[in-house]
Amino acid sequence: MHEQQLTSHQHHVVIIGGGFGGLHAALALRNAPVQITLIDRRNFHLFQPLLYQVATGALSPANIAAPLRAILHRQKNARVLLGEVARINVTERAVQLADGERIAYDTLIVAAGVRHHYFGNDHWEAYAPGLKSIEDATEIRRRVLLAFEAAERETDPEKIDRLLTFVVIGAGPTGVELAGALAEIAHFTLRGNFRHINPADAKVYLLEGGDRVLPSYVPSLSEKAKEALTKLGVYVKTGAMVSDITAEGVTYTMDGETHTISASTVLWAAGVRGSELGAQLAEATHATLDRVGRIMTEPDLTLPAHPEIFVIGDMAHYAHQTGKPLPGVAPVAMQQAAYVAALIKRRLWGNTSAPKPFRYTDKGSMATIGRAAAVADIRGIHLWGFVGWVLWLFIHLMTLVRFQNRVLVLIQWAWSYFTRNRAARLITGTTAQPHLTPKATKEISQA
Amino acid sequence: MHEQQLTSHQHHVVIIGGGFGGLHAALALRNAPVQITLIDRRNFHLFQPLLYQVATGALSPANIAAPLRAILHRQKNARVLLGEVARINVTERAVQLADGERIAYDTLIVAAGVRHHYFGNDHWEAYAPGLKSIEDATEIRRRVLLAFEAAERETDPEKIDRLLTFVVIGAGPTGVELAGALAEIAHFTLRGNFRHINPADAKVYLLEGGDRVLPSYVPSLSEKAKEALTKLGVYVKTGAMVSDITAEGVTYTMDGETHTISASTVLWAAGVRGSELGAQLAEATHATLDRVGRIMTEPDLTLPAHPEIFVIGDMAHYAHQTGKPLPGVAPVAMQQAAYVAALIKRRLWGNTSAPKPFRYTDKGSMATIGRAAAVADIRGIHLWGFVGWVLWLFIHLMTLVRFQNRVLVLIQWAWSYFTRNRAARLITGTTAQPHLTPKATKEISQA
Repeated sequence: MHEQQLTSHQHHVVIIGGGFGGLHAALALRNAPVQITLIDRRNFHLFQPLLYQVATGALSPANIAAPLRAILHRQKNARVLLGEVARINVTERAVQLADGERIAYDTLIVAAGVRHHYFGNDHWEAYAPGLKSIEDATEIRRRVLLAFEAAERETDPEKIDRLLTFVVIGAGPTGVELAGALAEIAHFTLRGNFRHINPADAKVYLLEGGDRVLPSYVPSLSEKAKEALTKLGVYVKTGAMVSDITAEGVTYTMDGETHTISASTVLWAAGVRGSELGAQLAEATHATLDRVGRIMTEPDLTLPAHPEIFVIGDMAHYAHQTGKPLPGVAPVAMQQAAYVAALIKRRLWGNTSAPKPFRYTDKGSMATIGRAAAVADIRGIHLWGFVGWVLWLFIHLMTLVRFQNRVLVLIQWAWSYFTRNRAARLITGTTAQPHLTPKATKEISQA
Repeated sequence: MHEQQLTSHQHHVVIIGGGFGGLHAALALRNAPVQITLIDRRNFHLFQPLLYQVATGALSPANIAAPLRAILHRQKNARVLLGEVARINVTERAVQLADGERIAYDTLIVAAGVRHHYFGNDHWEAYAPGLKSIEDATEIRRRVLLAFEAAERETDPEKIDRLLTFVVIGAGPTGVELAGALAEIAHFTLRGNFRHINPADAKVYLLEGGDRVLPSYVPSLSEKAKEALTKLGVYVKTGAMVSDITAEGVTYTMDGETHTISASTVLWAAGVRGSELGAQLAEATHATLDRVGRIMTEPDLTLPAHPEIFVIGDMAHYAHQTGKPLPGVAPVAMQQAAYVAALIKRRLWGNTSAPKPFRYTDKGSMATIGRAAAVADIRGIHLWGFVGWVLWLFIHLMTLVRFQNRVLVLIQWAWSYFTRNRAARLITGTTAQPHLTPKATKEISQA
């Protein structure tokens, strides 16, 4: 449509996805003699590691999101296109958008991320939303806050108990952080806010199929994290395999026994899988998909026989370094973006020799548990508690994309830290109120 | 349901609505020997005068909203009830909620506000959303940002022109503030953000049926406001009567001639009317409703023959002071709340003599136009330009309910002031994308 406006002789790099991988690839190509088109369904870059803070009312969506156009507005070789990619036509080297527009590329970088995965139980999604988008976060915030509101108005003790029971499934970083934040809300944030219930009566369960929380961390930090969670009042169940989720609660098997938790709010942090686009791309290029739909890439992050197509970030299964796929975290995506940008520039300079394979440098991993506790593994140095938390805070603040976000998030955190308050406790949106609707609908239809 | 938990001999004050009137009535009764139940459909108090800042991406919803429970959590004689009032049973002195719960009262304060009013053209609402709730604000933000996105991808110059034309109907404070903010977005905030369109080509129209903008202000300030708007590039049309709004644009009559503006984004700031609840209450009490559905109250803000029912805020038509109804602004609601609280306490002390009628003290009115211009009328002293704006900023900040909000809003403003940036430019929500959907839907159904 607008291709005539691209300088015809310039190399056109099309990037699908404005997350950590896609955005940083665009930024890393700022001085390269290329035209860049960054395509995303959303108009903003989302700082996903802090999404659970929105879900638990501590931060606002705008604190952890920055408009892509604003980030790239001075980078004259980049344009942003708000659109949904329907298909990649690898033969014609073109991306097909859902609205019919066709974008030709010379080089394609696919960084379209992952979505929730319920292991073949897609009907669980209605009862146990996952946390990938701003809308997911405000929906979770809504469910959690409405559960307390409904409990306040309920008289049946059994129902109150069910309304005040929260289950988080999956004890990776997101699950651990969500469970910790929920426990804080119940024990501190909402203290004194209700007249009939005591929010501290709320129970938070964290269910993990593996044998410890934070399975990708070293065992000693898993242990510290479990201690911190237990201290906050979270019931941690490891080796717990979920067998069913309904409107009533969660059923799981542990040590050969079946247990049921009666709970009105269940949150899913257990599994993700590659996007549909990945499946289509793999089929078109004869690339291999792994068990969860990620694309196996070559050592230089290209696809077999398609040196012009790169796959990076959560969508990529890169096992050339350790034999295991790299974890789906921001630093991997960002380092892959830098590698790919350097490789593209190298090619444009005419260097056609085989590049060194991509190598991920693990600068450490961290997870936070509640107000002032975190576990961190920084190149083998293990930190926990307050020290771990300060480090976590510092690193997250420094990597937030824009200055204003950093200042505002710092103030919100300082405020939350000293007051244990969460200002963004707003129930918004017009979707059904899961706990309040049935009664209300009945009455209105009687009126 | 929970009435057993109220001390049986204590006077029960039920307040409907957690806006400026209802919330401040609850706060003013904090030391009174009463039990207070504050009922609202939403779990937060909204600082409506700044809602247009959310609609235009400068502030986040949580910056201008505070959870009612958090505000009242230390006030032990008050409880908050999240619920929708279906009916007031004045004979039984009870409020009936939509979910069937019945709340008996000794004194009732009704402060349920107003909603948009399209003067009998309800079908205009789909094309011209109004600005009353957080959801309205994020929907307007979404439409405005998507219009620029759609223009960026359009090639037909006529369609681009239509997408970049914004019409605000109604030049009261909200309309003036919206139009000013839209002009700023087009001319400054989005500068350099697009590659195919120039956002500064956008046209912003402000249509007003009366003969000047800000009709409730003194004429000299209306003139200053018009000058400031024109300087920002807003086309101000006074004496313009809107006759139709469609998906294509707006038709209006001015000086006997009919004009049509082809515009994809139309915003409604022209009229409000009392809630349904007001109509039901007026019928039950034989009170009089005015032309726009507000309830005519007695000089002490009660209803005729119902000294136990008070109506305050935007819902009340109070003409005993000047012969004209008081304007629907926060200071009126807050002063009425204080008056009603004092009257309730007086009655509880056994003073049954007739009270002095309510009197509104007008401390001034203000409206802001763009980044650093405002008009203010402070007890007859007229200010405008930068001085008016600083005053406007100061007064709004001081009346924001909670400390954290003040600090954060101040920083956001300082940031916006120096950079002309608007950080909260997020397109969120899952409702239809007004400008992008038709094409996208077509393509998906073809796939």
